[in-house]
Amino acid sequence: MQPLITFQKLISYQFKDSRLLTQALTHKSYAFENAKGADVNSYNERLEFLGDAVLDLAISEILMKLENAEEGELSRRRAALVNERALASVARELGLSEFIILGKGESTCHGAQKDSILASTLEAVLGAVFQDGGFPVAKKIVELIFEKHMTGEVSDHKTKLQEKWQALNKSAPLYKLDKTEGPDHQKTFFVSVYVNEIKLAEGSGKSRKEAEQNAAAQALAAAEGMK
Amino acid sequence: MQPLITFQKLISYQFKDSRLLTQALTHKSYAFENAKGADVNSYNERLEFLGDAVLDLAISEILMKLENAEEGELSRRRAALVNERALASVARELGLSEFIILGKGESTCHGAQKDSILASTLEAVLGAVFQDGGFPVAKKIVELIFEKHMTGEVSDHKTKLQEKWQALNKSAPLYKLDKTEGPDHQKTFFVSVYVNEIKLAEGSGKSRKEAEQNAAAQALAAAEGMK
Repeated sequence: MQPLITFQKLISYQFKDSRLLTQALTHKSYAFENAKGADVNSYNERLEFLGDAVLDLAISEILMKLENAEEGELSRRRAALVNERALASVARELGLSEFIILGKGESTCHGAQKDSILASTLEAVLGAVFQDGGFPVAKKIVELIFEKHMTGEVSDHKTKLQEKWQALNKSAPLYKLDKTEGPDHQKTFFVSVYVNEIKLAEGSGKSRKEAEQNAAAQALAAAEGMK
Repeated sequence: MQPLITFQKLISYQFKDSRLLTQALTHKSYAFENAKGADVNSYNERLEFLGDAVLDLAISEILMKLENAEEGELSRRRAALVNERALASVARELGLSEFIILGKGESTCHGAQKDSILASTLEAVLGAVFQDGGFPVAKKIVELIFEKHMTGEVSDHKTKLQEKWQALNKSAPLYKLDKTEGPDHQKTFFVSVYVNEIKLAEGSGKSRKEAEQNAAAQALAAAEGMK
């Protein structure tokens, strides 16, 4: 059971029913080597079916933060994040291959390094988390493990900046609209962010929120530089 | 606002932010007839993007109740439920066409009767419910509006039977395993359901749960017959 405990630490989630996690990590090849006519719940394909949908919704909800993006752009971005290759890359960063339970045949062929097995196991893990803990928990894990793969606009810089300042016991950042430019349907917003009346950074964007996010990102980048 | 109130009664959900529902019901054709370079949040395409994923996950979770179904069967069933034609049919049963807000051009062409517009508006409504109330609420609405389209095994007969008896102030139904038949990997379970030691019905299935669901379905069917 030790590997299961380690894995749960990696994804920052402890299962109520750890059998679901075992099922999620078990490849069909293992189940069929160990039981004739293996039970469909002894390997991860059903959870992969569920997890695929969990991942799609989690990524979709995160992308909706791009308030000015049209449906076409959202679809393109989602497709870029949830394809097999991208999923396999996220799974590798997580070190998932160490935890996949494979049959001897697949093991010999380095199955735990295959994109298809890494991607489907990652989906199965998300399906298991969803069944065990519900959608908000699964979404948090998606945010955690996909963070690096999300572009600047999507990750929430304002929240991060606020957390940073609150950890330092300072007052919360304030955003002020400096000006707007351009015609009504194509306006650009310019915003500055302040803490205790000291200007940290500026940002611009197609909406006030986007400008604020960009200003927060600038302030965070500046703070990183000062370390 | 009267149509919005009526529609919310139809789906048994009252929005905290009814602007989301208005957005979900508004087709691009209306938004573009009424504003040059319409804001992407003045019509329903973004919510359709989100709702498509909400629907997929809701249907997937409901189908997971088919405990013995392999991934392939689950995928086929999901595809049969969420394709444009099936969605348009569900939207028609709901009377959705009356509430779709179309531009004059589309209105003249009976756009509210088109499969594509009905299906996408239904998805947008589910996206709006998800944003407004979270996943469990959206899933309940999917269960409600797709009920007729789900096959016997998926709808939860045990819960329905229990609700029926509790409404009559009787004790909860009890399930007893009568026997099993066949070899270990291909067992059939036989179950009877009782209330106050009176046998209501029998059922069989590939798992104990499936047998209980079938017994509950039989009991419900018998109760219908007695009305």
